[in-house]
Amino acid sequence: MFDLSTLAEPIVQAPLAGGPSSPELAVAVCEAGGLGFIAAGYKNPEVLREQIEAVRAKTDRPFGVNIFVPSPDAADPAALRPYLARLEHEAGRHGAEVGEPRFDDDHYDAKLELVCDARPAVVSFTFGCPPEAVFDRLHEHDIATWATITGAAEAATAQAAGAGALIVQGTEAGGHRGAFVDDEDAGGIGLLVLLQLVRRTSPLPLIASGGIATGAAVAAVLCAGAAAAQIGTALMLAPEAGTDPTQRELLNEPIPTRLTRAFSGRLARGMVNRFMTEHHDAAPIAYPEIHHATSPLRAAARKNADPGGFNLWAGQAHELAQARPAAEIVRELGAEARRTIHETAQRLALTGR
Amino acid sequence: MFDLSTLAEPIVQAPLAGGPSSPELAVAVCEAGGLGFIAAGYKNPEVLREQIEAVRAKTDRPFGVNIFVPSPDAADPAALRPYLARLEHEAGRHGAEVGEPRFDDDHYDAKLELVCDARPAVVSFTFGCPPEAVFDRLHEHDIATWATITGAAEAATAQAAGAGALIVQGTEAGGHRGAFVDDEDAGGIGLLVLLQLVRRTSPLPLIASGGIATGAAVAAVLCAGAAAAQIGTALMLAPEAGTDPTQRELLNEPIPTRLTRAFSGRLARGMVNRFMTEHHDAAPIAYPEIHHATSPLRAAARKNADPGGFNLWAGQAHELAQARPAAEIVRELGAEARRTIHETAQRLALTGR
Repeated sequence: MFDLSTLAEPIVQAPLAGGPSSPELAVAVCEAGGLGFIAAGYKNPEVLREQIEAVRAKTDRPFGVNIFVPSPDAADPAALRPYLARLEHEAGRHGAEVGEPRFDDDHYDAKLELVCDARPAVVSFTFGCPPEAVFDRLHEHDIATWATITGAAEAATAQAAGAGALIVQGTEAGGHRGAFVDDEDAGGIGLLVLLQLVRRTSPLPLIASGGIATGAAVAAVLCAGAAAAQIGTALMLAPEAGTDPTQRELLNEPIPTRLTRAFSGRLARGMVNRFMTEHHDAAPIAYPEIHHATSPLRAAARKNADPGGFNLWAGQAHELAQARPAAEIVRELGAEARRTIHETAQRLALTGR
Repeated sequence: MFDLSTLAEPIVQAPLAGGPSSPELAVAVCEAGGLGFIAAGYKNPEVLREQIEAVRAKTDRPFGVNIFVPSPDAADPAALRPYLARLEHEAGRHGAEVGEPRFDDDHYDAKLELVCDARPAVVSFTFGCPPEAVFDRLHEHDIATWATITGAAEAATAQAAGAGALIVQGTEAGGHRGAFVDDEDAGGIGLLVLLQLVRRTSPLPLIASGGIATGAAVAAVLCAGAAAAQIGTALMLAPEAGTDPTQRELLNEPIPTRLTRAFSGRLARGMVNRFMTEHHDAAPIAYPEIHHATSPLRAAARKNADPGGFNLWAGQAHELAQARPAAEIVRELGAEARRTIHETAQRLALTGR
């Protein structure tokens, strides 16, 4: 089974579902010595299969597939109505129509079947913890399993269920929070705190995620006990990423980010824009219903190159993203991490007792 | 002038105004090779002078004094009224009376005079950036100056004004946010992101603050470019700290924290409790008015050992605080940081390219 310590660079690509993810990006990260990822989220199984095959055609290195765990229950339709009414007005701006606020499971079972057949090196999960039987089945197919956690209790649950490693997602991370339950009261725990809390109680390999954009930060999370750093926003300006052109132009600007449910009905971090500001306070907890409802609006805003009208997912360090080939980014972060650790070790030996 | 690199341990004590701060704690940290701190906040100048003298009597090592920069304007009294009415009900629980919601500057000028006379090694500032003339005057008295920042723009302002070093406070930190303006939209930036952003643009020494409770985390922030780690909550169970006994009993429990203005009218992080839950949404931006208004209520709740009735300031890693003498904590964090960096350097040399 895949072992993180065999990577040439301690770098894992974040799945980046919903746009920036592409087979080309995964291939570039893999070929540079990191672990590339394909996002299964929002795709139908046929597209997912094609993308896995596209990666396989270009690299024989290990790569991962990330799967969304479905929400257990549909939202109460009555609770959606006021927000859907707001979205009607929003839709008028771009001549679009509000999408059907449907509940679905994002083809969860079919995607599990597919990965058992295609056997990527790693399958990671976001938005929940699968039952033990799912982990067992993947392990029987020689697939390493990673669970995304945002708190210490989730880490304990995932470990008990049989996850092979933990993606430790700090509040700094861009895009959706991977929490098992979308509950703001669980607190937005910073990456460095979360690594300390989880490292104390879990022997599993940890993949640190959230706001990592420099080799110095890679070195930092390795010191804090991670086996690798997961980078997402840091790759969004790479030519291989499918990042929307309108967002590309803004990514290096000092625009604050915040967590919001305005776009999808589930907490996610993006750059503050008009849509977020106007609708944040009114957004219900209702994923994937609100995701589907806003989908045509977001597509229309993208088409109109209107950065105020769609989700500008980004982590807190988005200003530091570099417009360079993904392979260069991965290799430079790895080299800078090694340099940083050696320099810091020397500095500590020279001063102090 | 004091140079951070001369510390035997790369550890700075957080000032911990309002309870946990004590001359004994500062002395213990200094004698262990770290930099102890006295909190000037909330104290009248006579008490501050006595505490500085108490530290001087027990150690000849360098130490620091932290001063609150006053709010520029008093809050609009009309905006306070609804919240003060809520507090009346709260006061009844403990037979206390709501305090006078007065505006003051916490004896700012007198404290600046005092430190110019007493000449501690370092004076740090919280809640704002003094003008250039203040930094110049302190430097003329051979006092190193540190400014607390919570974002990249504040770092640039503090550097331009002449601050000699920056305390980089992540959202993970316990107690009050040191932001120049109490504005939630500035975003709760995680420590590791903030270090990356500030390190890119500022050559000043950085002191990393927020959620640092283990030597591995000290190693992490040193890799991320900090010259030292500031620890506060990690010292709150030390016998030398003046931590309230009721909070001591809770500090290692897995209780979430959040940022709130409920207790002081200014954002601060504490363990979630009844007072916070009931009043958070209603609290205005009004510091120090609300601080003074709740002061008798909080004192009464402390006296009654009611953990639901006062501010349980704590950083996100509070579960990891250790009930040990402060000197042991400082020395162990330093030793563990050195061990971690050497082990991580070896691990990276063994694997990878």
